Amino acid sequence: MKFHLTILGCSSATPTSERHPSSQLLNINDSLYLIDCGEATQIQLRRNKIKLQKINHIFISHLHGDHYLGLIGLLSTMSILGRNNTLNIYSSPLLKEIIDLQIKASDIHLNYELSYHFLNYENLDLIYSGKNADVYSFPLKHRIPTCGFLFVSGKKDKNINKDVIIDEQISIEAIKQIKKGEDFVTEDGRILKNEQITFTNPSPISFAYCADTIYDESIVQYIENVDLLYHEATFMQDMASAAKEKFHSTTIDAATIALKANAKQLIIGHFSARYNDLEPLLLETKTVFDNTLLAEEGKTYSISD
Amino acid sequence: MKFHLTILGCSSATPTSERHPSSQLLNINDSLYLIDCGEATQIQLRRNKIKLQKINHIFISHLHGDHYLGLIGLLSTMSILGRNNTLNIYSSPLLKEIIDLQIKASDIHLNYELSYHFLNYENLDLIYSGKNADVYSFPLKHRIPTCGFLFVSGKKDKNINKDVIIDEQISIEAIKQIKKGEDFVTEDGRILKNEQITFTNPSPISFAYCADTIYDESIVQYIENVDLLYHEATFMQDMASAAKEKFHSTTIDAATIALKANAKQLIIGHFSARYNDLEPLLLETKTVFDNTLLAEEGKTYSISD
Repeated sequence: MKFHLTILGCSSATPTSERHPSSQLLNINDSLYLIDCGEATQIQLRRNKIKLQKINHIFISHLHGDHYLGLIGLLSTMSILGRNNTLNIYSSPLLKEIIDLQIKASDIHLNYELSYHFLNYENLDLIYSGKNADVYSFPLKHRIPTCGFLFVSGKKDKNINKDVIIDEQISIEAIKQIKKGEDFVTEDGRILKNEQITFTNPSPISFAYCADTIYDESIVQYIENVDLLYHEATFMQDMASAAKEKFHSTTIDAATIALKANAKQLIIGHFSARYNDLEPLLLETKTVFDNTLLAEEGKTYSISD
Repeated sequence: MKFHLTILGCSSATPTSERHPSSQLLNINDSLYLIDCGEATQIQLRRNKIKLQKINHIFISHLHGDHYLGLIGLLSTMSILGRNNTLNIYSSPLLKEIIDLQIKASDIHLNYELSYHFLNYENLDLIYSGKNADVYSFPLKHRIPTCGFLFVSGKKDKNINKDVIIDEQISIEAIKQIKKGEDFVTEDGRILKNEQITFTNPSPISFAYCADTIYDESIVQYIENVDLLYHEATFMQDMASAAKEKFHSTTIDAATIALKANAKQLIIGHFSARYNDLEPLLLETKTVFDNTLLAEEGKTYSISD
């Protein structure tokens, strides 16, 4: 199972000449999920040779500009390049209002349907369930309503050996029972044991995206045992009070959440423009949670190939 | 007199991995004028080491996204970095509506004043007159209301030698007369000839920005004898009918306007994403107007040092 995360932007609100505002592309078995869409995301997608039109789901965590300002440009380019497929956007209703006004001002027409799914900023919520992933939103604590996202790959049902289905002419009703774990009795009375005729699905793989947020232990419940956690670390620990005041996190905050959630791996990002060299942020995070990586633009992190 | 134009973005609606949407910075004697502000303009400004806070005037030609989507990000960054000075925006009233909605959605507060000056899309209009330049808008023909801009440097009045003003204690009323070309008679009856006590101002330098527009000879009246003309050339001549249909121009269109306006030099830009190699566009333009340059991002064109 393919499970790849590509970082398109890892700066905080003020971009630098080297770092773009927030955006990430998650590829689960060739289903592409775009998470946040800061300014110039469409250019970053091109630089990373990601096919724009294969993106069918865009998740916007909150409406600070560094997380959504690239969206209207991307939507417009998708239309110019001939998109027909519906595009799903998971966001605040206010984003629809902004996009509608921008479309009106430009007098453009998108040649495909935008399907909005408005986020609930209070509770854990299953916002999408598809072939390759389930996606949940959960509340983060920031200056304005903000969601984290949890992506879980893989199907819960078992897969049945297709040859057996054909050979034994198994009905759809019987397939449902087999998927639940039952054995199958053939017309001539043979018992086919469940484990003989089904595949065990690979274990689900999970990724959690937590930006932007103040240090908040209440999110641990949503991301326990996650395979890969992206958690913002806008500041180093010596700026803990600034972080708190601005509803952001430090390196140690991110590491502590990873530790408490028993995450397998942590990526930190959303770096303040004050840091040119990010190595000190990495070293500081590792003092609490060793298996940490820096978000690097253009880099793809593979949890599974 | 310094008169420098820096190209920040020269792509048409769909940016490429190499070319950004429209934006240019005009520096006239260290007064900075930003013309259009496509997505990622703030990053391009940083890459070109241009001081964001020195920009006090932003001119938005029209509300297609590739000409304004970078604005709200730039405004927000200016505030985060501590701007106090008023920022003047010359645009459609609809832009204010969009910016207001985005500010509301982000729940941010700009620590400086935005002063909007709404464009008149019907006639030539003097929209700003300052120490270093006068700026005019004039109508272009595009799918939505669109303006071109004409920047003219230099003062019309003569400058008086300051030492003479002090030595002879010349009154403000008398200074006004001298600036109009009159001689000055001192208290003791000496006649100071006008040419002895004034400097001749350098000739004004002019730059015209024409994007986006269909081929339209009616603009020639506004840009006659311009020193530098930027005119869009989205397509090569073999796509003349597509250009017309989309209210854009070809290489030959741009060259013909430059010729008819008796421009000294032409820069073409707003290139369609279909062109990787721009040399053929340059060669084609030069068949009609030889003194042509390609817009190149990060390049500064000096009309005067």
